[in-house]
Amino acid sequence: MRAALMYGAGDVRMEDVSDPKLEEPTDALVRVVRSCVCGSDLHAYRAMPACGQGQQMGHEFIGVVEETGSEVTGLRAGDLVVAPFAFADNTCDLCREGLPTSCPRGGIFGAAQAEALRVPQAQGTLVRLPVDEDSELLPSLLTLADVYGTGHHAAVTAGIRPGTTTTVIGDGAVGLLAVLSARRLGAERIILMGRHTDRTDLGRDFGATDVVPERGQEGVERVRELTRGEGTRTVLEAVGHLDAYETAMGVVRAGGVVSRVGVPQYEQGPIGFVPMFGKNVTLTGGPAPVRAYIDELLPDVLSGRVQPGRVFDRTVGLEEVPEGYRAMNEREALKVLVRL
Amino acid sequence: MRAALMYGAGDVRMEDVSDPKLEEPTDALVRVVRSCVCGSDLHAYRAMPACGQGQQMGHEFIGVVEETGSEVTGLRAGDLVVAPFAFADNTCDLCREGLPTSCPRGGIFGAAQAEALRVPQAQGTLVRLPVDEDSELLPSLLTLADVYGTGHHAAVTAGIRPGTTTTVIGDGAVGLLAVLSARRLGAERIILMGRHTDRTDLGRDFGATDVVPERGQEGVERVRELTRGEGTRTVLEAVGHLDAYETAMGVVRAGGVVSRVGVPQYEQGPIGFVPMFGKNVTLTGGPAPVRAYIDELLPDVLSGRVQPGRVFDRTVGLEEVPEGYRAMNEREALKVLVRL
Repeated sequence: MRAALMYGAGDVRMEDVSDPKLEEPTDALVRVVRSCVCGSDLHAYRAMPACGQGQQMGHEFIGVVEETGSEVTGLRAGDLVVAPFAFADNTCDLCREGLPTSCPRGGIFGAAQAEALRVPQAQGTLVRLPVDEDSELLPSLLTLADVYGTGHHAAVTAGIRPGTTTTVIGDGAVGLLAVLSARRLGAERIILMGRHTDRTDLGRDFGATDVVPERGQEGVERVRELTRGEGTRTVLEAVGHLDAYETAMGVVRAGGVVSRVGVPQYEQGPIGFVPMFGKNVTLTGGPAPVRAYIDELLPDVLSGRVQPGRVFDRTVGLEEVPEGYRAMNEREALKVLVRL
Repeated sequence: MRAALMYGAGDVRMEDVSDPKLEEPTDALVRVVRSCVCGSDLHAYRAMPACGQGQQMGHEFIGVVEETGSEVTGLRAGDLVVAPFAFADNTCDLCREGLPTSCPRGGIFGAAQAEALRVPQAQGTLVRLPVDEDSELLPSLLTLADVYGTGHHAAVTAGIRPGTTTTVIGDGAVGLLAVLSARRLGAERIILMGRHTDRTDLGRDFGATDVVPERGQEGVERVRELTRGEGTRTVLEAVGHLDAYETAMGVVRAGGVVSRVGVPQYEQGPIGFVPMFGKNVTLTGGPAPVRAYIDELLPDVLSGRVQPGRVFDRTVGLEEVPEGYRAMNEREALKVLVRL
């Protein structure tokens, strides 16, 4: 079958690879119907050392079940399904507590930019979708695999409630869906920090009430001006770079919460008295337990009440995945949908 | 009057200084009845550069009101009072939200190891005590100024509830009172990390169910052995050094909370994917808003249900304050009470 492989920074190729097959009785085989390129794939696209051995990519997909292992119940060939970016058994203590990303039997998908893939822990992972495979809802449903659930995680862990004022840092797909999620949970005022007008315009559609294009200390001061000098009680950090973390600590109000959902591209950061401890600031977030959120988020997507799929502004075929990476990396595209 | 002044690391002297007097209409003058030496004073005692100009010390006291400014109501000369280590107006938004340590009119006391001191924002700061000045409850009441409220803050911000399992890092006064606080809030299992047997014995009296004397990676492994390899959902870090932070991240369970109340003696720390983000760990805590807790904590102290004053294991007179620093610094004493 055909699959996208990354050979190093800026080097994604389409190649023939061997077809996936069932390996464990808890597996399923899924034919991919939609996939996409993630902002976190771009971290590798910018930094991966060149390598003679290509690595399959992709962790977001909607597909059709082709075959299931002997221990999989509740799924059958022909089912249209969405998967969270992390597979999990959905039965262990951590899964039941809502943290499938820490499931001891779990892991992250890494081969969804392909014609098909093997899904471990299929029963705990895959969620059947009550639409067919050419539904116009597919882009929005696909965001349940990662970016919508991730934006929701930022809003939930930050403690967004009706009436909350919040700052969202980053105008990528996750940042914009953090805006949508904060609005959906009742945030009254949402300050979006981003400098790409086409993206921040979509952010306004999703519920942003203020847009701050300035960055760094200038951006911090702008947010403080908008909030009586105090900053906001909650900050949703949807970038993952150290300067975004520093901005978050700069705009959070004393006693407030910074939730990070951008995968940190740094190991160390300032957590001492001045930026954090002295103000009683809480730092939370992490990889979103997307599976735990799908049941809650699905109805509003199916009803059309929210349209998170609007983050896709370009659609390519599977053979054009390398072009999709290039377009996203050069910020020509916000998020690229792959239609098979 | 007589007061303790620090001239540099290891150099505390008793000297005559000018008597404090009212400066603002919101001030009160308080004659000190009990003071003490704090673990955080020791940070200065170990690290302060030598200086020709001595600096008054001390932020914990019980005293008798001698005089009040014209805008102070509800207090009169002769009242026995306790003060939180940070003064605050107790009327602004942040105070009303329970964060007096971030009050714009607030600050930290710094001259309580003396015969008397000026108390800014007296009405918002001082709490009258319904006992007299030779009450046997004074040591326990004095812990409301800092160490008990600080231990309580760790337990509250970590989210200790009935049935919680927690790890407390540090067997100083704050760590031991974090144990007492966790127990008071219903924690079922409390693992105390500390290696001074006399202190951890008091920790057991306060509610610790397990004691781990090992430190560093060995200590982390020991806590994991005690918790099915998982670590604990909550960790109360009552030391303030980077290795204690690293231990906290090592023993916290996925999805758990680390609350710091030891004043961080570091600026940067590991907050990347492996120690923190990937496990969805929350980092919280800060300077305890002690004033906000006194009303809740006072009744159990007055009734004798809790005896946080047991952390004082040595009593000195004011002239012996330098000896008190030495004894605490050399770990001869856990916490030194100053009786005037």
